[in-house]
Amino acid sequence: MPVNPQVGRLDHVRAAEQPLFTPRTPRIVAARRLHRRRERDTTGRFLAEGPQAVREALAAPGVLVELFGTPAGLDRYAELADAASRAGVPVSGVTEEGLAALAETVAPQGIVAVCAQVDVSIGEALARRPRLVAVLAEIRDPGNAGTVLRTADAAGAGAVVFAGDAVDPYNGKCVRSSAGSLFHLDVVRAADPIAVLAELRAAGLTVLAASGYGETDLDELTDAGGLARPTAWLFGSEAHGLPAELADAADARVRVPLHGRAESLNLAAAAAVCLYASARALRPGAARSAPEGA
Amino acid sequence: MPVNPQVGRLDHVRAAEQPLFTPRTPRIVAARRLHRRRERDTTGRFLAEGPQAVREALAAPGVLVELFGTPAGLDRYAELADAASRAGVPVSGVTEEGLAALAETVAPQGIVAVCAQVDVSIGEALARRPRLVAVLAEIRDPGNAGTVLRTADAAGAGAVVFAGDAVDPYNGKCVRSSAGSLFHLDVVRAADPIAVLAELRAAGLTVLAASGYGETDLDELTDAGGLARPTAWLFGSEAHGLPAELADAADARVRVPLHGRAESLNLAAAAAVCLYASARALRPGAARSAPEGA
Repeated sequence: MPVNPQVGRLDHVRAAEQPLFTPRTPRIVAARRLHRRRERDTTGRFLAEGPQAVREALAAPGVLVELFGTPAGLDRYAELADAASRAGVPVSGVTEEGLAALAETVAPQGIVAVCAQVDVSIGEALARRPRLVAVLAEIRDPGNAGTVLRTADAAGAGAVVFAGDAVDPYNGKCVRSSAGSLFHLDVVRAADPIAVLAELRAAGLTVLAASGYGETDLDELTDAGGLARPTAWLFGSEAHGLPAELADAADARVRVPLHGRAESLNLAAAAAVCLYASARALRPGAARSAPEGA
Repeated sequence: MPVNPQVGRLDHVRAAEQPLFTPRTPRIVAARRLHRRRERDTTGRFLAEGPQAVREALAAPGVLVELFGTPAGLDRYAELADAASRAGVPVSGVTEEGLAALAETVAPQGIVAVCAQVDVSIGEALARRPRLVAVLAEIRDPGNAGTVLRTADAAGAGAVVFAGDAVDPYNGKCVRSSAGSLFHLDVVRAADPIAVLAELRAAGLTVLAASGYGETDLDELTDAGGLARPTAWLFGSEAHGLPAELADAADARVRVPLHGRAESLNLAAAAAVCLYASARALRPGAARSAPEGA
């Protein structure tokens, strides 16, 4: 949408001159309700804390809905406040208590944004032909989910699917753990993991289930060229692993080799090893050395 | 040491018949002080919660010093209590409150052990000629440190060095995050990281600093055969990275490639990718394909 930079700038200046919002100001009360999943599901909005998240949200058109900051926060991140104003996003000054009401961390660095949820359908995500996808099945821990989202982004994944009874990707801790990656790739929410598998396979992706008890060794699969094609990795919860039904539905169940005496890897580490094994095999040129038909 | 299984068994039965220890019983008061680092440093002991940690501690001769459990916990893990008794380790029944005083987790599964610290000197560790070593430099977060310890164990590392002003490896959260790996490999504590580097290099290990800003790409290093020799990886804190002095002292500074838009990986993920790249390159047979002199 066309915006007038001068009006934006004036809005921002005006915001700093208005009385500061407090925890009892209706707009803070409303935004604060987004700490609850039900409110996020109903409104299609969520909260993002701190300058990194705000910067990422600003970069995605239409995502930033409203920006709140203490006078010190808006001053420190004036370029973000200005950019928000220019994009027609309301920018409001809040008291320290008002900010604390919106933030879950002790040090949100003075700014918190209300954002529009960014997830797309599995069909939209697959239309962009991702070569690497991560599926988080029944993962309940928001820190784990956000970390895997961040790792998937780093490994070049085009989409991350939150499948089944997984954590809400807009949970505050998940948003923070993703370190901005929530805004970098296609996030998909899908109630039925088995249906997701069928769609992934129909789109030409090999579906690999990461499992400590898998019959296929990751190194051997790599050596056989089994990672040199578009791949979707399934990851289950650290406590319970992948549901058997889902692991059975994959093209293979793959275990990360355990060379020492550890009984297992934690989820974030296992996902990093699997996703980076794929990233390495999918590098331009890397696939050429894979055996034909492997 | 030779033990009489029957005496052990009788001790264990007798323990269950004695009055249960409470938070005010002197031995519980003394054990509880081990939550503090200063007390751990002074006594050379630490606390390990739950059956997995107790089982691992039992497997290492002389490590288990004392075992406490609720009647239900000692009953549920009777084989551990029996084994402890047979090894001459005092086993005592505690009230739920007594257990809660010793445990940091909500659900310690009924047993907590006092253990002797297990770390060895860098010289002892290097005498065993480890082919893979992880050095945690200035890592303050106990959960991160324990997770990297677990991942290093899984990747086949022979030693993990807590260097400089790093977290105490016997911090309760570190012990729990290590999931038993604290007992699986050589844990070393070293005040001077630069001196550690010199010893690692003198022992023939290539020293690689994991750094998001490293001049060497991990994939390229792997392709060049640079991981096919005994290697020590240096990891710094997630917040501050490696101290420059330490990164500069390494043989190379290596970055995990970022294929997507993530600005970085978290520590646990980066360590998993680096350590498993080494594990793969160090597999029997894998080194043969590395170029000569790389």
